[in-house]
Amino acid sequence: MKKPLILVTNDDSIVAPGIRALIEVMKEIGEVVVVAPDSPQSAMGHAITINDTITLSKVNLDKEIDKEYSCSGTPVDCVKIAVHEILKKKPDLCVSGINHGSNSSINVIYSGTMSAAVEAGIEGIPAIGFSLLDYSWDADFEPFKKYVKNIAQKVLKKGLPDGVILNVNFPKLKEKDIKGIKICRQAKATWVEEFDKRTNPMGKEYYWLSGEFVNQDKGEDTDEWALHNGYISVVPVQFDLTAHHAISQLNNWNL
Amino acid sequence: MKKPLILVTNDDSIVAPGIRALIEVMKEIGEVVVVAPDSPQSAMGHAITINDTITLSKVNLDKEIDKEYSCSGTPVDCVKIAVHEILKKKPDLCVSGINHGSNSSINVIYSGTMSAAVEAGIEGIPAIGFSLLDYSWDADFEPFKKYVKNIAQKVLKKGLPDGVILNVNFPKLKEKDIKGIKICRQAKATWVEEFDKRTNPMGKEYYWLSGEFVNQDKGEDTDEWALHNGYISVVPVQFDLTAHHAISQLNNWNL
Repeated sequence: MKKPLILVTNDDSIVAPGIRALIEVMKEIGEVVVVAPDSPQSAMGHAITINDTITLSKVNLDKEIDKEYSCSGTPVDCVKIAVHEILKKKPDLCVSGINHGSNSSINVIYSGTMSAAVEAGIEGIPAIGFSLLDYSWDADFEPFKKYVKNIAQKVLKKGLPDGVILNVNFPKLKEKDIKGIKICRQAKATWVEEFDKRTNPMGKEYYWLSGEFVNQDKGEDTDEWALHNGYISVVPVQFDLTAHHAISQLNNWNL
Repeated sequence: MKKPLILVTNDDSIVAPGIRALIEVMKEIGEVVVVAPDSPQSAMGHAITINDTITLSKVNLDKEIDKEYSCSGTPVDCVKIAVHEILKKKPDLCVSGINHGSNSSINVIYSGTMSAAVEAGIEGIPAIGFSLLDYSWDADFEPFKKYVKNIAQKVLKKGLPDGVILNVNFPKLKEKDIKGIKICRQAKATWVEEFDKRTNPMGKEYYWLSGEFVNQDKGEDTDEWALHNGYISVVPVQFDLTAHHAISQLNNWNL
């Protein structure tokens, strides 16, 4: 049987331990192509590069992989250039991650990792984003490899509903403490921003964006609840942003 | 009666004719604060600046406005810094645009203009993104000013459903040819990418992203249909990306 063709990308850059762990798992189940950013692209959302050029460099970080490229663009650029320029066809699966840090709840909208998966979904490719709730470069991905493999194999076998991508987040736990997997909705949560104001050596003021994550959602069917209670969260994500429920209400405005 | 406080931003930069037209209209109905990018930020999606500093410069392009700032960050950064650092409170309304170019259908997800409005929505501020289907810097915004005013006043009066932002697109038409406003869903459409491969003077290959917009949606309730048939499209947009309809199906997978 022909091995499935699997595109691997991320937003933490091609050398991040998270993507190397993901590549290890994908090699067990398919033919792997890697196209990932040449530098960190966290929080790039669904940005694409239209006012600048994009460069690709063939690399060989993994001797077993023939097609491995670092790209100067965003995570979404990586998916576009992989599909339309490198492969010139759709892979059977696109996986993004494993992200160093959470992409649960509202983080999905800021995440380069998830936006890469969503872009694959827009192009009709079954896609999954994986993230671990540990920002450390030394994060331990080992306990989660079997779950990554299982979920990827399920998606390869069953496909995904039209227009749906999976957002998988792993709690920072030891293997024995993981209670299982929950299918969830995105929790209603926001970042409450604080800007750290500083002065540079030339006397000009500048800011660092920082903030606190606040979960306003008490529901037990959310990704935040699952992760805080020892479960791996899986949220089906869509790119049809229409608030269908609001259409009839707006029609009553007689604009 | 106290005038409503209105935050104006965009992605084409603070000097773009589109934002200047939007400011003109907003001055008629409220107290205006402007925080917009200091350079073009089209297609930045929901990117935020976490690995670099952000600078703000007070400018005075409009003598009637006290608080007008250009910002080195993305459109989403502009909204965050406006609310949390400049105003230190929520405005009554956030408007973004008027974008030079379409943000209909799938473009909503790449758009810096719409992502700024969505960020305001996430922060609980009624928000509207406006775009004109004309990429030209010389685009004529005049015929659309009365619609911008009407829609903004309606939102100020009635508010918006929780978690909903408006995506308003104007067809490139003369005033007499505009047939009215349609409340729509986002059309199912994609960009089919083509990468323009070139060689720089040092012999290194690079790419420009380009592509063709393809509408696969035959529905007459979509924004694409409305715009092609002489109507202004209004799509209610949400930032809960959960594909709620897919949850029960995934539960049957027994992951």
